[in-house]
Amino acid sequence: MIRPVTLPPTPHSGNARLDQQLAFLLEIDALKQVLRRSYRLDGAARENTAEHSWHVVMMAMTLAEHADGEVDVPVVMKMLAVHDIVEIDAGDTFVYDHVEDDNAGASKQAAESAAADRIFGLLPPDQARDLRALWDEYEFGTSANAQFARSLDRLMPLLHNFHTEGRTWREHGVTARQVRALHQHTGKGSAAIGRYALALVDEAVRRGYLDE
Amino acid sequence: MIRPVTLPPTPHSGNARLDQQLAFLLEIDALKQVLRRSYRLDGAARENTAEHSWHVVMMAMTLAEHADGEVDVPVVMKMLAVHDIVEIDAGDTFVYDHVEDDNAGASKQAAESAAADRIFGLLPPDQARDLRALWDEYEFGTSANAQFARSLDRLMPLLHNFHTEGRTWREHGVTARQVRALHQHTGKGSAAIGRYALALVDEAVRRGYLDE
Repeated sequence: MIRPVTLPPTPHSGNARLDQQLAFLLEIDALKQVLRRSYRLDGAARENTAEHSWHVVMMAMTLAEHADGEVDVPVVMKMLAVHDIVEIDAGDTFVYDHVEDDNAGASKQAAESAAADRIFGLLPPDQARDLRALWDEYEFGTSANAQFARSLDRLMPLLHNFHTEGRTWREHGVTARQVRALHQHTGKGSAAIGRYALALVDEAVRRGYLDE
Repeated sequence: MIRPVTLPPTPHSGNARLDQQLAFLLEIDALKQVLRRSYRLDGAARENTAEHSWHVVMMAMTLAEHADGEVDVPVVMKMLAVHDIVEIDAGDTFVYDHVEDDNAGASKQAAESAAADRIFGLLPPDQARDLRALWDEYEFGTSANAQFARSLDRLMPLLHNFHTEGRTWREHGVTARQVRALHQHTGKGSAAIGRYALALVDEAVRRGYLDE
């Protein structure tokens, strides 16, 4: 879990909103401590959630033309920038832990919701509401923006797994059946990305990165 | 420097643009290997440029109201997401290395420009041009967006230094005079942020984090 950080007292700026915003920005530095299951492509380390968040923001900028619905790229970027901040309190969720376990999913959801309250609540109320709405939309929403953001967030770890020859799959005994079940949904925001995801899974099996 | 990454051959998607975009996204994973001089706030490790890029994107979302000019927040976010990608080839530049050395600055600039050509050039030509234009605007531009983005990118390492009790300053023998000279420019995009930056420097000296 996260090492608690005790910062020296912060000088006030004389602007209460700026003070709250800076407190939030200092707090979310902790996302750099949250390790995901995926490895960086050089294989030397697992990636952390802060760097992953940047990587999916870049994905939104780059792959927007493949969205099926009418998406607002800046909104998708913002969603992806904030979508995992709750992991500071709630930890990273390995997607294959929950595919077949509803109870674990419900308790995780409660922990993430409390984390969103606490962390976004550091901001001035209007901004707290805005980021919470973005996060809710990502988690529970059916908008084209949320669907596309989720497609990207599904594709990214698949790319990491494929290009590290299935390292995370092997470490956790994940099977092709589980990966295929997950990626049935990847096409919801983009048929092109969904097709590519399923083709990558097939190719991973063919190359022996993933057991059938 | 960066460990070279040899990826297994990538399956084609059947869409040439998507293939180019994916090649770019896989390439920029290497930004997670580039270490900056700043420490994470928990002090356990130096931060890398990918996670820093996410952090300044969050700063743009959060502090936009303090910009002096008319800024386009999504453009500032995009600028900050891409502004350091060149470090994959050119390495991170410690800002105090160049404050008084024009030659080092010029050769760094040439290396970064070549890096921008190579890395953005992996994308389809229209997107390569767009990201290159964003990067150029950040590096050389005088728009309100670029000024504000640079103010944020100056404030962030100052916050990290202050809240780790001047760790990077001490490791590199940086003096208050150098830090003050640098932060004369931090207010260009936001007077409020510039004032806060200079107040933080004064307080750092008072607390003994930084030598006069």
